[in-house]
Amino acid sequence: MSQRVRIGMIGGGQGAFIGGVHRIALRMDDAFELVAGCFGRDPNNTKATGAELGLDPDRCYPTWERMIEAESQLPPEQRIEAVSIVTPNHVHHGPAKAALEAGFHVICDKPLCISQEQADDLAATVEKTGRVFALTHNYCASPMVREARERIARGDLGTIRKVYVEYLQGWLSEKLEDSGQKQADWRTDPARSGPVGALGDIGTHAHQLLEFVSGDRVTSIYAILQTFVEDRALDDDDMILLKMASGATGTLCCSQVCFGKENGLKLRIFGTEGAIEWDQEQPNDLKVIGSDGAATTIRTATGAAGEASTSLTRTPAGHPEGYLEAFANIYIAFARAIRQQEQPLANPFPTVDDGVRGIRFVGAALLSSAENRWVDIPE
Amino acid sequence: MSQRVRIGMIGGGQGAFIGGVHRIALRMDDAFELVAGCFGRDPNNTKATGAELGLDPDRCYPTWERMIEAESQLPPEQRIEAVSIVTPNHVHHGPAKAALEAGFHVICDKPLCISQEQADDLAATVEKTGRVFALTHNYCASPMVREARERIARGDLGTIRKVYVEYLQGWLSEKLEDSGQKQADWRTDPARSGPVGALGDIGTHAHQLLEFVSGDRVTSIYAILQTFVEDRALDDDDMILLKMASGATGTLCCSQVCFGKENGLKLRIFGTEGAIEWDQEQPNDLKVIGSDGAATTIRTATGAAGEASTSLTRTPAGHPEGYLEAFANIYIAFARAIRQQEQPLANPFPTVDDGVRGIRFVGAALLSSAENRWVDIPE
Amino acid sequence: MSQRVRIGMIGGGQGAFIGGVHRIALRMDDAFELVAGCFGRDPNNTKATGAELGLDPDRCYPTWERMIEAESQLPPEQRIEAVSIVTPNHVHHGPAKAALEAGFHVICDKPLCISQEQADDLAATVEKTGRVFALTHNYCASPMVREARERIARGDLGTIRKVYVEYLQGWLSEKLEDSGQKQADWRTDPARSGPVGALGDIGTHAHQLLEFVSGDRVTSIYAILQTFVEDRALDDDDMILLKMASGATGTLCCSQVCFGKENGLKLRIFGTEGAIEWDQEQPNDLKVIGSDGAATTIRTATGAAGEASTSLTRTPAGHPEGYLEAFANIYIAFARAIRQQEQPLANPFPTVDDGVRGIRFVGAALLSSAENRWVDIPE
Amino acid sequence: MSQRVRIGMIGGGQGAFIGGVHRIALRMDDAFELVAGCFGRDPNNTKATGAELGLDPDRCYPTWERMIEAESQLPPEQRIEAVSIVTPNHVHHGPAKAALEAGFHVICDKPLCISQEQADDLAATVEKTGRVFALTHNYCASPMVREARERIARGDLGTIRKVYVEYLQGWLSEKLEDSGQKQADWRTDPARSGPVGALGDIGTHAHQLLEFVSGDRVTSIYAILQTFVEDRALDDDDMILLKMASGATGTLCCSQVCFGKENGLKLRIFGTEGAIEWDQEQPNDLKVIGSDGAATTIRTATGAAGEASTSLTRTPAGHPEGYLEAFANIYIAFARAIRQQEQPLANPFPTVDDGVRGIRFVGAALLSSAENRWVDIPE
Repeated sequence: MSQRVRIGMIGGGQGAFIGGVHRIALRMDDAFELVAGCFGRDPNNTKATGAELGLDPDRCYPTWERMIEAESQLPPEQRIEAVSIVTPNHVHHGPAKAALEAGFHVICDKPLCISQEQADDLAATVEKTGRVFALTHNYCASPMVREARERIARGDLGTIRKVYVEYLQGWLSEKLEDSGQKQADWRTDPARSGPVGALGDIGTHAHQLLEFVSGDRVTSIYAILQTFVEDRALDDDDMILLKMASGATGTLCCSQVCFGKENGLKLRIFGTEGAIEWDQEQPNDLKVIGSDGAATTIRTATGAAGEASTSLTRTPAGHPEGYLEAFANIYIAFARAIRQQEQPLANPFPTVDDGVRGIRFVGAALLSSAENRWVDIPE
Repeated sequence: MSQRVRIGMIGGGQGAFIGGVHRIALRMDDAFELVAGCFGRDPNNTKATGAELGLDPDRCYPTWERMIEAESQLPPEQRIEAVSIVTPNHVHHGPAKAALEAGFHVICDKPLCISQEQADDLAATVEKTGRVFALTHNYCASPMVREARERIARGDLGTIRKVYVEYLQGWLSEKLEDSGQKQADWRTDPARSGPVGALGDIGTHAHQLLEFVSGDRVTSIYAILQTFVEDRALDDDDMILLKMASGATGTLCCSQVCFGKENGLKLRIFGTEGAIEWDQEQPNDLKVIGSDGAATTIRTATGAAGEASTSLTRTPAGHPEGYLEAFANIYIAFARAIRQQEQPLANPFPTVDDGVRGIRFVGAALLSSAENRWVDIPE
Repeated sequence: MSQRVRIGMIGGGQGAFIGGVHRIALRMDDAFELVAGCFGRDPNNTKATGAELGLDPDRCYPTWERMIEAESQLPPEQRIEAVSIVTPNHVHHGPAKAALEAGFHVICDKPLCISQEQADDLAATVEKTGRVFALTHNYCASPMVREARERIARGDLGTIRKVYVEYLQGWLSEKLEDSGQKQADWRTDPARSGPVGALGDIGTHAHQLLEFVSGDRVTSIYAILQTFVEDRALDDDDMILLKMASGATGTLCCSQVCFGKENGLKLRIFGTEGAIEWDQEQPNDLKVIGSDGAATTIRTATGAAGEASTSLTRTPAGHPEGYLEAFANIYIAFARAIRQQEQPLANPFPTVDDGVRGIRFVGAALLSSAENRWVDIPE
Repeated sequence: MSQRVRIGMIGGGQGAFIGGVHRIALRMDDAFELVAGCFGRDPNNTKATGAELGLDPDRCYPTWERMIEAESQLPPEQRIEAVSIVTPNHVHHGPAKAALEAGFHVICDKPLCISQEQADDLAATVEKTGRVFALTHNYCASPMVREARERIARGDLGTIRKVYVEYLQGWLSEKLEDSGQKQADWRTDPARSGPVGALGDIGTHAHQLLEFVSGDRVTSIYAILQTFVEDRALDDDDMILLKMASGATGTLCCSQVCFGKENGLKLRIFGTEGAIEWDQEQPNDLKVIGSDGAATTIRTATGAAGEASTSLTRTPAGHPEGYLEAFANIYIAFARAIRQQEQPLANPFPTVDDGVRGIRFVGAALLSSAENRWVDIPE
């Protein structure tokens, strides 16, 4: 990258989790320079975080509104070109829209926002402004996910019949939000998380991954949203039956009360002529079932891996990459789209459309669970 | 076993699969002597099979009715004591009932039969005759399944919250029944398989295993029964949402069109304090998640394995046992119950009650799928 | 098998381990009838074991010499045709030789015997008598071992370069022999085990498996025989560097003091064009590395498995078989060789030649370790 | 890190592998600023690489001698504080010594150098100058390696008896150096790689990992160094028997001709009371065998993981980190040692002493292999 993209961050102050991940991701391939930030609602947090990051104190802003306004006033060669939004869900739409309208490119954590109206509005804003918008469904940028997608796209599996995707965690098995743990606190609070808990936090990842890899669409669902931990305000476990545009069917299960599960995102797709299986906890392996029924493990950066995955690895075969590297794959694609050095085709990243589909999926699940019936999801 | 149990077999002639398995199972621990049989509808098949097995030709019978009648006439010290029924589903109820009424103990392949009426009738007949009745849900006799059951029964998992059981195969991905393959042929034929295909063949295994291990009961289900292969007469793929008596919920998926899957029966149970995971394709391993969240692999016959499992292994740690040994564990328990050498508590085997519950489960699933609603399963 | 082979057993009374395994193995495929036995030095043990097995008390003999003599006197259609020898190592040569000379076929546990002289004498006796002699190196009859052998024989691996075989156990980490545990007791006693402990007990298995699968020969070794547990009389850990006839090199490590290891026999072979890996604790899987470097798992009885393995499985894909089934594969081959129903090529079993090679390997290792130098093993 | 460490790089120009890895590693935690470099012998390569990295062209130097000299002349607040050396082995000693003597801290790729004299000289120079010197044996900074080390150090394994370490690769199975592949080219050239090939490149990693984790020392070895690929000038396969200071014994095998192996560094240590096993290709898992013999998988950042590993992870449980993150753990420790923010105890990094031991190990192996005898390695 001949010239780094100047970027500002909203959210990600002390005590946050995902902000630090975004910062590692944007540093990894040296394609960004973090030059401004509003790292939280508390200006002291922003100041302290900015100092720790070596930012110019003048560009550590007390509010995101102020940041966008002030940066817009700076000379073009100084001001930020892009904004990274790593706040809780309820603070996605506002800064994203404002940033886009101020002419900044936006990379935003998932889920896109907390209502269908917000989602549609963001999609319209992206369209109107023509800015680059990336949504960090990071798992879809794991090399072996791309390998799976490439193989399915070229027909290795024949017609898809069955899809099983699950995202099982156990960290909310107890009422962790009562302990003040920051990640649990906002994720279980409707005011900040939106109308769903587990479904928005991890279910949307599972949904996006499934559609991304399969090239298929979830068209109708039957959902059971549940809360196992007493007095928790949002769902912590969901079971969803799926019908796909292709005629395939399957299940999407997500849970944050599966004791002992860490971050168990697992995707299996079965077609008439083959199958794939991927588990994000061992992300460098893709299990591929070929025409003779035998399971072959395709590993990153080996001779058996294709272009779609190999182009996203930084190290030779046998040198495992993981969560942070996949995250960085979104960032590098975002940077390249900004610089127009590369067609998005080679490393497609999730866009506002993925976000809109995720929010539709959430809405359909809420309706299905409330009315105990199948609900369609429009294309 | 001081004296072998004299047994006769119905079904299991040339071309059959499960009959041979039953014969290995009954031989393994030397507790039975196979002395009579009606191995198929074709008397020539019976004759040839009997000859191969070294049976007295006079005790190779042209019909099962004839076998039961003739054996009943033999002197008590010669005649069979038990009958093994390994026919397609539609020929379970008839010979089982007749055998019981003739005073013979019965061990029968699953599912129990093909209708609720047949199931209730068999249960009543067992009760009335007082004979021993075993149903070969063989997987529940795998040592590590017993280990899981023992651990759950003593409270290692706390309160159960989530159950996921799946039984995925791929062997019916194509219309194998058209090729004349005998196993596919009858399993996809409503006249012989009964009103369901995959659900009866493997779904009932999954259901029984879940209830056996968890000690919990499936009380309400929402089922989607599907047929993926064109012109197939019965379901080849099922997705079922579960509510358990304990308040736990989960999914039961079974399929015979998951390309490349061999015999993927996998059970996962999550409680408030622990979890277990078992995969019948690696049956000597039980994954146990303990209170610190770490996963320990309990292996058969090791110091970490408990009495319930260790009593069912024949070899020291590291000497893998498998499908046939688990099957034999049902047979040895059946023999011991006949000889009353041992309380069934130490090695409980599936009984007619398991069979009745399986048929109720099938009936509820059919109703749920047809009427698109949740259906309760009475206790 | 049209007519069962009448067999007598030497060893395997109460408290023994391997005798019970042999009995399950010989029963499994219904090819043998156990009709006589001398199950231990204590006639009461023999009587009790015979009674438990339902043998004619007249054919439960106080000594093996008496058994061979008495059986020889019986009419041909009654007397045993074969002898199974399952005693400690020092009682292999005597009964094997006597049985062969009396015209009986012999199946004997490993290692063949305890000295080179005994080994050569047995080989000469087999040659002279023309009787069938099988040595129960059971692991080489595991289907996926046959699969590996077939693939190597047809050239899938190109020229072999590296071989790594290990057999690691932990059960003798403490001085178990002091507790009176019968298996530990004789295995650590030079009078009964012979001049080596771990090397004879498990090292010979590893050596035989390596030569059987690779089709190659160990021609020169550098061995370190060690004893870790204080006051143990024989080696409990061995490390051996190998040179093969093909020019390949590698290591053979065996140990009985690797804490926590159960029965870790693992073989890896690397050639110029491919590689294989097999672990007897997960015996239904064969890892095959093909020309593109990707690892495929070949599973028993699947479409990807070849004739050599498939002919040795009793159940369809996904129905795991294990240690006992592999053992039974030796017995059925032994029976077929006796009945001449089948060329040994289809299911070759280890013979006295494997036994002689094993004893030569032991002798070379002892010499190498004592003199701290490489020692050749003649062809 | 309040202020980034200004660093210059020697080596790592276009076509290099490890230089890019070092750059990602130094960026990951934002503790360094790369401000100068001499990226290769060709000044055009250096210029192009520097431009790509956004360096000031004046600080892209034609030779490393010039870089050290010129940087020394810059004002203290501008000039580099540390040098990263990522050249082939023969260009480690020269720049490392010069940099140290110019007052710069040094982080250097492994092996330390190509002769015992060089190694001793570097150790003396580090001692004399008091500068921080880190050697990038990156694997020892993988969190689960630290977990293993902590558990062994506190006695979980009892007395160590057996150690098995292997580092198997397959990428040099053919004569890749003839194709002009840069990595193969210099690694097989004695002028650049030094007197050994595979042994220096990967064997020293295995040796360092073993000593680091076990806290034990390799005191005597018997080595076979081999070359399988025709006309290759250096060893591509090594087998080494080990005696440890503790009395433990074991093997160290490294190879670059094990077809299909990617980067198979695997360590197993068995003690009298427990065992550990770690495989760098699945680095987030540590297999621990506890007192009951059962194997527990300790995973990064879970509740079961200790401080030594948890302090080195950047993400929660289930978010896999890999090769690059471990590498970055060395860099962050190097930065902290420079800034004296943290005692090295909390995150010890490999030092010149590890390097000296590695070179001694290489020397002993060469001697052992040449003279066919055991060779001691002094403490």
